[in-house]
Amino acid sequence: MLRVGSRTQFQIARCIQQNASRYFSQAVASTTSSSSLVETSIDGNVATLTMNRLPVNSLSLEMCEAISSGIKEVEANPKVQGLVLASLSKSTFSAGLDLNELYNPDLDRLTAFWKSFQQVFLDLYGSRLAVIGAIEGNAPAAGCMLALSCDYRIMSSGSGKKVPLIGLNESQFGIVAPPFLGHLMLRTVGQREGEIALSLGKLYTPSDALRVNMVDEVVDIEKVLGRSYECAHQWAKIPPHARYASKMLARKQYLQELHATRDEDVEAFKGFVMNEQVQKNLGAYLQSLKVKKK
Amino acid sequence: MLRVGSRTQFQIARCIQQNASRYFSQAVASTTSSSSLVETSIDGNVATLTMNRLPVNSLSLEMCEAISSGIKEVEANPKVQGLVLASLSKSTFSAGLDLNELYNPDLDRLTAFWKSFQQVFLDLYGSRLAVIGAIEGNAPAAGCMLALSCDYRIMSSGSGKKVPLIGLNESQFGIVAPPFLGHLMLRTVGQREGEIALSLGKLYTPSDALRVNMVDEVVDIEKVLGRSYECAHQWAKIPPHARYASKMLARKQYLQELHATRDEDVEAFKGFVMNEQVQKNLGAYLQSLKVKKK
Amino acid sequence: MLRVGSRTQFQIARCIQQNASRYFSQAVASTTSSSSLVETSIDGNVATLTMNRLPVNSLSLEMCEAISSGIKEVEANPKVQGLVLASLSKSTFSAGLDLNELYNPDLDRLTAFWKSFQQVFLDLYGSRLAVIGAIEGNAPAAGCMLALSCDYRIMSSGSGKKVPLIGLNESQFGIVAPPFLGHLMLRTVGQREGEIALSLGKLYTPSDALRVNMVDEVVDIEKVLGRSYECAHQWAKIPPHARYASKMLARKQYLQELHATRDEDVEAFKGFVMNEQVQKNLGAYLQSLKVKKK
Repeated sequence: MLRVGSRTQFQIARCIQQNASRYFSQAVASTTSSSSLVETSIDGNVATLTMNRLPVNSLSLEMCEAISSGIKEVEANPKVQGLVLASLSKSTFSAGLDLNELYNPDLDRLTAFWKSFQQVFLDLYGSRLAVIGAIEGNAPAAGCMLALSCDYRIMSSGSGKKVPLIGLNESQFGIVAPPFLGHLMLRTVGQREGEIALSLGKLYTPSDALRVNMVDEVVDIEKVLGRSYECAHQWAKIPPHARYASKMLARKQYLQELHATRDEDVEAFKGFVMNEQVQKNLGAYLQSLKVKKK
Repeated sequence: MLRVGSRTQFQIARCIQQNASRYFSQAVASTTSSSSLVETSIDGNVATLTMNRLPVNSLSLEMCEAISSGIKEVEANPKVQGLVLASLSKSTFSAGLDLNELYNPDLDRLTAFWKSFQQVFLDLYGSRLAVIGAIEGNAPAAGCMLALSCDYRIMSSGSGKKVPLIGLNESQFGIVAPPFLGHLMLRTVGQREGEIALSLGKLYTPSDALRVNMVDEVVDIEKVLGRSYECAHQWAKIPPHARYASKMLARKQYLQELHATRDEDVEAFKGFVMNEQVQKNLGAYLQSLKVKKK
Repeated sequence: MLRVGSRTQFQIARCIQQNASRYFSQAVASTTSSSSLVETSIDGNVATLTMNRLPVNSLSLEMCEAISSGIKEVEANPKVQGLVLASLSKSTFSAGLDLNELYNPDLDRLTAFWKSFQQVFLDLYGSRLAVIGAIEGNAPAAGCMLALSCDYRIMSSGSGKKVPLIGLNESQFGIVAPPFLGHLMLRTVGQREGEIALSLGKLYTPSDALRVNMVDEVVDIEKVLGRSYECAHQWAKIPPHARYASKMLARKQYLQELHATRDEDVEAFKGFVMNEQVQKNLGAYLQSLKVKKK
């Protein structure tokens, strides 16, 4: 199953992350794991939300709820102005939706699942915090949504021959991003590049993502976290009320659009998922993953 | 008159096009000329619509209807997923509206003409096919509309000293693009470049058009068709339903806008054309063209 | 106080400007100072509006009214098609709002002030003239609004070590640009760059402003006026009705949006200004300026 993580990878990742903290010569003041799926910590006015649903931070109902809870938790601390969104896995920021949620689903859970996914977008894209995406690994599909909902994105150039990819690759698998996510891409990279990106389900290398403004900086993988904290501290210096009001100038309309069409979007998603052919494809795909793991 | 074409040019162009087909080592399976004005052919899942109203593919009522019919015809074949939009003339993709439609017009025909032009936009911009524009020659004004309505545009860098140009140059002649076309330009190149492009009626060289994302690739004129078929085949591989849904995510709003304002747009166009000064200018211009031809 | 200007700087600036006129080997035909705050002149089909509320062209109620009057005055001349918007100061295009209008204000005057500021935007952004911004010096905050409302912007690369800056830096001071201005920035540089620009209150060097399309050309300070007149003459050659209709294609929607929300925008502004903390900050800031001047 997708949830089985590598303990070794987990420990190495944690070690790297702790070194990153030391890089700032600051002890992390408090660590309050809001759940086992995400880990939050606060250091002065900058918080960290580390996704650790290994191996690939796939978004299940519980993972979506944990991310939203984590954001609310750090937002509740009035000192916090910046947030670094990171992944414990160095190879994957988030691989997107947990497909197990979609296969042969309970309809009530499916509804709750999609609402929790919408909520992650609303919470991240509309957060009062300056959210810096520390994208060390792959960010396809809904993983790309997490990245695009940040205020600023720093992506790893990769390590060795492994170059991480980012993009909305849904169409390659015969599915389509929900409108709120597709439009987020169109706004981010512009109508032209966005049409091509969505139609072809294009995954971008870090340098291509930088060229089309899908990410804002590309640095060595060892520097992603460090640079993200630098940015978070820089953004946290701006008077918070004004920074947030500026963000809302740019985003309020789109947050309201999802609020206004939320139920409609749930129904469209359920209609798509329950399509017979889609169920068949999902079953075959999940079966093939199980075989690989053996 | 504008319809008088050069037979020699026609034959050379056809020869080049046939070589392009051979470049893929594929025999064109079927050729169904939907009319003498456009030629359609289907090869596997990729169709071709070649405009051949020589010399410059100017858009008359009949030409607009032929383009729309050609699109509908190839869309009716469920195997077809990609479409290459090309011109039999190597020097001109399309020179835009046939001005004879505008001078001293019958009002009923003028209405039908403009509706047929709107329909070409709706059919191209909203086609279920992935439409690749093979732009070997000039694409000014409504010719640029044909290009901008494609999913992807490949433009010739020119041959010899002849560099083709593309853009909405209406304002240079004292006229203005209809809103649906002006807004298409603004979306394609962005608000800033678009304002300048529309206000100055700017025609872009291939390299400038590439820089502002008005076209997506610039290649040698001999390679435009070949590269267009490569792209059409690439786009045709994406699951069609998902590709089309992605396209609609980006375009549905604008298609609906024209549907909602179609009659209004017809009236605005007729009001403009029937303006006394415009008629006078058109008459003088068409007379000057006749003199040149002699 | 902010209104005290340097007479010497005034004379040098005027000398440079007169040389710029001679550069075109044309005598300025008529000079009609519409007020002491702005100076207008007309030469053929190109007018000049020079802001001269020294030292920094800060926007008071009277300055806003003078700019609007100056625009209306030159627009009233049917020969005029182009307008160069310039500053008599070489170091500052405009420093933005006159903060004296905001501190301990009379509420009726505050209302009139903000309406006059909205009116400057409406008059510049919607002018029937092709407006070229000759930006020789700094253009922060509302000074950037003046620049972004032009049709085309030419910015100085600076002289000596002084590099002028442009941008909406409101958030750095704990305030936020009004929606009509924030959205103007988002349209000009695109959603991504715009979000960052607004959130961080970023001021751009000329080369950075050029990179993100905030300005259209960067030239030596001695060439800004000359190049601006060249552009104004180029734009003035386009048939005026078509040029203006093209501009409205791109801008009408946004002008209408402000018309529809004008009173709401006034109330939001007044609510912000009358906030106790804002008044306290303003008082302290203006006091510090007075101390500096002594």
